[in-house]
Amino acid sequence: MADLIIRGGRVLTMDGAIIDNGVVVVDNGLITFVGRNADEKADKVIDAKGCAVMPGLINAHTHLPMTIFRGFADDLPYDKWTKKIQPAEMKLTPADIRAGAYLGVLEMIKTGTTAFADMYFHMDEVAEVVQESGMRAALGYGMIEGLNEDSDTKLKSRANFAIKWNGAANGRITTMYAPHSAASCSKEFLERVKELAVRDNLRIHMHVLETENELKLMKKRYGMCSINLLNSIGFLGQDVLAAHCVWLSDDDIDILKTQNVNVVHCPASNMALGVGTAPVPKMLERGINVALGTDGAASSGSLDMWKEMRTASYLHKLKDPQVLPASKVLEMATVNGARTLGINAGALKPGFAADIILIDLKKPQFTLSNLTSALVHGASGCDVKTTIVDGKILMEDYRVELDEEKIMDDARNVILKITNN
Amino acid sequence: MADLIIRGGRVLTMDGAIIDNGVVVVDNGLITFVGRNADEKADKVIDAKGCAVMPGLINAHTHLPMTIFRGFADDLPYDKWTKKIQPAEMKLTPADIRAGAYLGVLEMIKTGTTAFADMYFHMDEVAEVVQESGMRAALGYGMIEGLNEDSDTKLKSRANFAIKWNGAANGRITTMYAPHSAASCSKEFLERVKELAVRDNLRIHMHVLETENELKLMKKRYGMCSINLLNSIGFLGQDVLAAHCVWLSDDDIDILKTQNVNVVHCPASNMALGVGTAPVPKMLERGINVALGTDGAASSGSLDMWKEMRTASYLHKLKDPQVLPASKVLEMATVNGARTLGINAGALKPGFAADIILIDLKKPQFTLSNLTSALVHGASGCDVKTTIVDGKILMEDYRVELDEEKIMDDARNVILKITNN
Repeated sequence: MADLIIRGGRVLTMDGAIIDNGVVVVDNGLITFVGRNADEKADKVIDAKGCAVMPGLINAHTHLPMTIFRGFADDLPYDKWTKKIQPAEMKLTPADIRAGAYLGVLEMIKTGTTAFADMYFHMDEVAEVVQESGMRAALGYGMIEGLNEDSDTKLKSRANFAIKWNGAANGRITTMYAPHSAASCSKEFLERVKELAVRDNLRIHMHVLETENELKLMKKRYGMCSINLLNSIGFLGQDVLAAHCVWLSDDDIDILKTQNVNVVHCPASNMALGVGTAPVPKMLERGINVALGTDGAASSGSLDMWKEMRTASYLHKLKDPQVLPASKVLEMATVNGARTLGINAGALKPGFAADIILIDLKKPQFTLSNLTSALVHGASGCDVKTTIVDGKILMEDYRVELDEEKIMDDARNVILKITNN
Repeated sequence: MADLIIRGGRVLTMDGAIIDNGVVVVDNGLITFVGRNADEKADKVIDAKGCAVMPGLINAHTHLPMTIFRGFADDLPYDKWTKKIQPAEMKLTPADIRAGAYLGVLEMIKTGTTAFADMYFHMDEVAEVVQESGMRAALGYGMIEGLNEDSDTKLKSRANFAIKWNGAANGRITTMYAPHSAASCSKEFLERVKELAVRDNLRIHMHVLETENELKLMKKRYGMCSINLLNSIGFLGQDVLAAHCVWLSDDDIDILKTQNVNVVHCPASNMALGVGTAPVPKMLERGINVALGTDGAASSGSLDMWKEMRTASYLHKLKDPQVLPASKVLEMATVNGARTLGINAGALKPGFAADIILIDLKKPQFTLSNLTSALVHGASGCDVKTTIVDGKILMEDYRVELDEEKIMDDARNVILKITNN
């Protein structure tokens, strides 16, 4: 007797198959069968007729609590945006972080995101929200060298967070070390971070060459860019999540490939802040694992990964329409995201996490034969009908388990406090 | 006794005011009152508590029946895309056009578009669909010189269409002359089109400098670009809708301003086909009326104007984040669109058409104080709850009047016929 069977949908495995009238069986948080028929019985059966059944989306770079800053610093370039956001951030209490994290998790569940990689502060609050909400996340406690505490204290407290939460919530929570960037942390500090990551067998999440200013500053400080510096100290590897990677030379791309670094593309944020266009088609061509992230909603305006997919598709087609077919964009938001977080998810196959979403296809924008194109270019978060994480149903037929009213009221109060300051 | 009162919503008039707990009164297809209190009674009262109440969106350049080609020619640059689409277009029967138009109208009603400017062929079918569905549209029967019939026959049949349908469906339908472009019609042909437009007091809808190839071809043929040629024959004026306008010089922009031409920006289509980025911020700065359009769903993948607004915002912020604030983008999709179509709509004020939409704001992405930013960057078509055109409710609480199943089945059959050819 399995826990859950999803029957009758159009199953997009992201493992090479689209199965009409397919069946997905879930037991004990894992997928145990994907195919046409299953004689298996289950405690719960979901009729997916008229729906696409696919792996949940993976948001590989965000700052969850920043949902409360959505629309707070619009129409500003990166530097001015940072100058407006940072003072407001410094005033956030753990309770504010908690309210922002809950608002973000609610938006993710409603739009079909089942896992995310986060980097912020007061991260115990975020971890508790992930634990309570049923989401899956790879959490990193941000580090800017010299901010608030000395390096020893900082590294110790980050290690405590990483060790305390890694594997928590039935394994839904994993942790990463999260130095902000090679510009905001010294070479020596980054070497110590790498040592800890190796010691604890944990991944590292950081911003890499998001802005031209970082590139200039690094060249001035070290005579080389962030990627060359990180490579020179043996920092780079498959355990590294490099967000943005906008200002790359061809040599940098070679290094990222050679070191098997995971890159996370954040097109909406990069466009909103005017930082530039990451060379994603070139990286994919070189075989680099490129995932997709919304960054914080304070820059991208949304945590809806469907919006992010459409933005990624058209941003790169602007330069060459023949790159980034819809199928590739969908891979970035699922398979590549899972590889980046280091989790067995992002595809529907036996042994993988039961992180599954259903999309209602009975809508005019889905009336075409090319399903992946319909989803990437036509879908929106609110087309997601059901969201399942770790085998648990977090939203069914558009009804979420969480107390939406309370979450939105709590967030609204924090937002009013911020905007009235 | 009025026909309709909408009470309790957050009224975004697009006429300079946001009225909390506002009231909109509708009588005989027109808005008769917008404000705080109205003692007026009505046959129908809509409780808009928790909703934004705003003018319906105006899609100022599309090819409605092309919804059946959505996803049919993905990942192709403009020329190759055209080569794939055109042979399939030539096979379309009036019944196919009708099915495609109904699919498009359904998507528009569900996503909050209340008026659109269309250019295609077998346009009597499209006009009938607009008449039957309750939508508002400015319809132009496309003209490519030399295609199918001689110029005399073509101009005569187009004039017949324009005169037959202008003012039909209680004025919901207006007509335009629609020469495809200055590259596909000769100077002499365009002069005859202008004469007819002046004779019949009708507007003109055409593509202008969408591609670099058009620019090169015109320079080769006439030693000047499309805009200079059109200006030299007295073709340009406030009665002209110029779609795309991607390849403009500063002189061209001056001419567009001097002649009060209405420009329609189609960012998603321009990105998908890799034709370039229209200088929209510069045009707006010069005081040119720039509206927004999805173009056909065969290129942009969607008729959802919310997707189009977000795309427009971020496309131009990529170059300069300080341009195109959300409020300006919303103007392009409402006020500027109405001016382009020459209709009294696009704003909620007495005497204007009762083309009104309600957006459900009780969602996490709208939990912020900046309403216009929330709508432009956070909303999707499926957040639209109620759509009203000409005072008639076409969708209420997400339920549309049209037979959705039949519309999608009919369209699906046409799509299968096309893809199996």
